[in-house]
Amino acid sequence: MVPTLYWDNDVVMILDQRKLPAKTTFIACRDMQRVIYCIQTLAVRGAPAIGVAAAMGLVLAGRSIRVKDPAKWRDRFSAKAEIMRAARPTAVNLGWAVDRILALVAVAPDEVETILAMMRTESEIMLAEDIAVNKAMGKHGARLVPKKATIITHCNAGSLATCGYGTALGVVRAAHEAGKKVKVIADETRPLLQGARLTAWEMVQEGIPVAVAPDGASGALMDKGLVDLCITGADRVAANGDAANKIGTFNLALQARRHGIPFYIAAPLSTIDLDTPSGDLIPIEERDAEEVLKFATCRSAAAGSEALNLAFDVTPNDLVSAIITEAGVLKPPYNRSLARAKAKAGLKVT
Amino acid sequence: MVPTLYWDNDVVMILDQRKLPAKTTFIACRDMQRVIYCIQTLAVRGAPAIGVAAAMGLVLAGRSIRVKDPAKWRDRFSAKAEIMRAARPTAVNLGWAVDRILALVAVAPDEVETILAMMRTESEIMLAEDIAVNKAMGKHGARLVPKKATIITHCNAGSLATCGYGTALGVVRAAHEAGKKVKVIADETRPLLQGARLTAWEMVQEGIPVAVAPDGASGALMDKGLVDLCITGADRVAANGDAANKIGTFNLALQARRHGIPFYIAAPLSTIDLDTPSGDLIPIEERDAEEVLKFATCRSAAAGSEALNLAFDVTPNDLVSAIITEAGVLKPPYNRSLARAKAKAGLKVT
Repeated sequence: MVPTLYWDNDVVMILDQRKLPAKTTFIACRDMQRVIYCIQTLAVRGAPAIGVAAAMGLVLAGRSIRVKDPAKWRDRFSAKAEIMRAARPTAVNLGWAVDRILALVAVAPDEVETILAMMRTESEIMLAEDIAVNKAMGKHGARLVPKKATIITHCNAGSLATCGYGTALGVVRAAHEAGKKVKVIADETRPLLQGARLTAWEMVQEGIPVAVAPDGASGALMDKGLVDLCITGADRVAANGDAANKIGTFNLALQARRHGIPFYIAAPLSTIDLDTPSGDLIPIEERDAEEVLKFATCRSAAAGSEALNLAFDVTPNDLVSAIITEAGVLKPPYNRSLARAKAKAGLKVT
Repeated sequence: MVPTLYWDNDVVMILDQRKLPAKTTFIACRDMQRVIYCIQTLAVRGAPAIGVAAAMGLVLAGRSIRVKDPAKWRDRFSAKAEIMRAARPTAVNLGWAVDRILALVAVAPDEVETILAMMRTESEIMLAEDIAVNKAMGKHGARLVPKKATIITHCNAGSLATCGYGTALGVVRAAHEAGKKVKVIADETRPLLQGARLTAWEMVQEGIPVAVAPDGASGALMDKGLVDLCITGADRVAANGDAANKIGTFNLALQARRHGIPFYIAAPLSTIDLDTPSGDLIPIEERDAEEVLKFATCRSAAAGSEALNLAFDVTPNDLVSAIITEAGVLKPPYNRSLARAKAKAGLKVT
C-alpha cells in the first residue's frame, strides 16, 4: 500500500495525488509553507488526510521558530497555526487538527524542545489513530452492506483521503475482507476526477471490481437497478447532519432518495462539527475556473466561456440514511445522535 | 453562423463537431456509409440534426443503387433505409426521417430519376423546416423566460444539434433577441463535453454570457440561488412525456424539482414518439467505455477499471414542467397534450 503521508526523519513526505494514477511521487516538505502548498493544490486531499498533514506541518512550523523563550515561542506559533487553519475552508478536520495541536502546546511544559518533541509524537499518534478509526468505521459500516452489493461512491474517500484504509472505501474494504461480494461504481468526480483517478486505482489494487461512471449517470444507473447502496465521505458534517462533501454528492443522494436506495456518509467523529448548526453555515470553497475549463493538459471549454467551480456541496440531512463513524452507525435525528456520540468520545474541541 | 450540415452540389457536407471548438472542419460525404459514420461517431449529433443527416444520407444511398426498374430499386432502397434507421437507437428523429423519406418514395412516380430528385428536394425542405420549427419553438419558449434569468442547460441543444438556431438554445436565443437579460450555465456534459465544447462555443459567438459547470454542480448552484430555470433538448419524448436526453439530464431535473425551479424540455413534434408509451421502453444506447475512461485525449481513469457509458437517461414526466414545441407549450397531463398536438399537426407517422 502506498502511504498518503509519513515522516521521513524530520521531513514530511506527501504523496503527490495530482500525478496519480500515472506516477507515484512524493513531495518532501521541510517547512510549513510547503505543506500548505500541498494542501491547497490537492497534492494531499481528503478531510482526514489534510488534518494529519496540518499537524505535521505545524511541527515543521514550530521548529522554524528560532526563539528559546516559551512564551514568545507560543505567540509566534499561534500566529503560524492560524495560517495553517486558513489553508482550505471546508474540511473541518484541518481546524480540528490545529486545535488539537494548540491544546497540546497550551498544556505542555515550558520548554520549547519538549513542546516540539510532544508535537511530533502527537502527529504520529494522529496518523496511527486515523487508520484505527477507519478500521473501526469499516467494521461498523460493513454490517450495512448486503452479502452481494454494488456500491456507488463519489470522489475518493479511500486510503488516499486518509492516512490509510479510508472512510467510505474503508467500509468497502471491510465488507470485501468479510467475504462479501462487493462491486464499486466510482463517480468520476469532475473537475479533478478523484473517482476515476484515485478510487478506481485503489479498487484495482485491492482486486475489487470497479467501473467508472460519469457524475450525471446516477439516476440512469439506479433506474436500471444497478446500484444497491451509496457511501461517500464528508468534509464537514454539521450538528444537524447536513454534510458537505465533493460537488456532486447532493445529486447522488437525491437520486438515491428518489429510488429508495440507502445513502450513507462514512466520516470520523473529527469531521462532525457541532459548532456549525446546519449545512448552510459551512463555508464552501470556490476554486480556480481553470479546473473546470480543462482536465490535465486537455482544454475542453470554448475560449471566452467562464466557469463555476464550487468545490463542495451540502447534502441535506433528510437525504442521509445514516452516518457511519468509529463510534458506530449514527441515525436520525442527527442533532441528538451526533451530539451524544461526540460527548461520549470526549472529542469535542471547545 | 457555421452550418451543421448542407448540400454542396451532390455532396453532403457535415461539420465535424468532435473537433469543436478547436477546429472548424467539414466531412464530405459521398455515400450513405460515410453519413452513418458521422452519425455514429458523433461528428453530427443532436436528434433534429441526425434526422436531417439521415434524410440526406438516404439520397446518397438512393443514387448508389444502379438499377432502373423502380420496383427493384425500391426493394434495394428499403433495405438501405433500414441500415440507416439502425445507426443510433435513442433519437426517434432518425426513424422519423427515414419514415418520411420512405413515405415519399412510396407515393412518388415510378421513375427512379424522379424519385431521386424528389428525395433531394425533400431533404432540403426538412432542413429548412427544422430551422423554421426551431424559431417557432424559440418564440413560444421565450415567453417562459423572465426579463432577467440564468438558464441552466445540459449537453448541446443548440444550432449544432439542429440545422440551425437550436431547440433549448433556440429558446435562449429568442429570449436574448427579445431583449431579455439571459445568462447561461452550461453543464459540461461528460463524457463527451458537448456543454463545455459546443454550448459554450455557441453562446460565446452569440455574445450571451456563459459559464461552464461540472455536471454534479446543479444542486449546489440551485442552493445558492444561481439558477432561475432549466431548459434541455430531448432525443425522444414518450407518449406520456417521459423524455430521453443526454445522460445527466434526469439529475438536473430532479434537483430542479427539489428546489422548485421549472424544468422545461424544448423539442420539435418530430421528437415526440406516440408509439412509445413510456420512457422505460425507449432504447438507451450504450457507448464505448473509452469515452468515460479518458477526457479528450487525456487518460483519466486508473488502468484496469471498467466503465459504464449509458449515453442517455430518461427524465420521468412528473419532473417536466412543460414541453416547448413549435406548436406551443405543452403541459401535463402529457398523454393528452402530446397526442392532441401531434394529431393537430398531422405529423404522426404510422
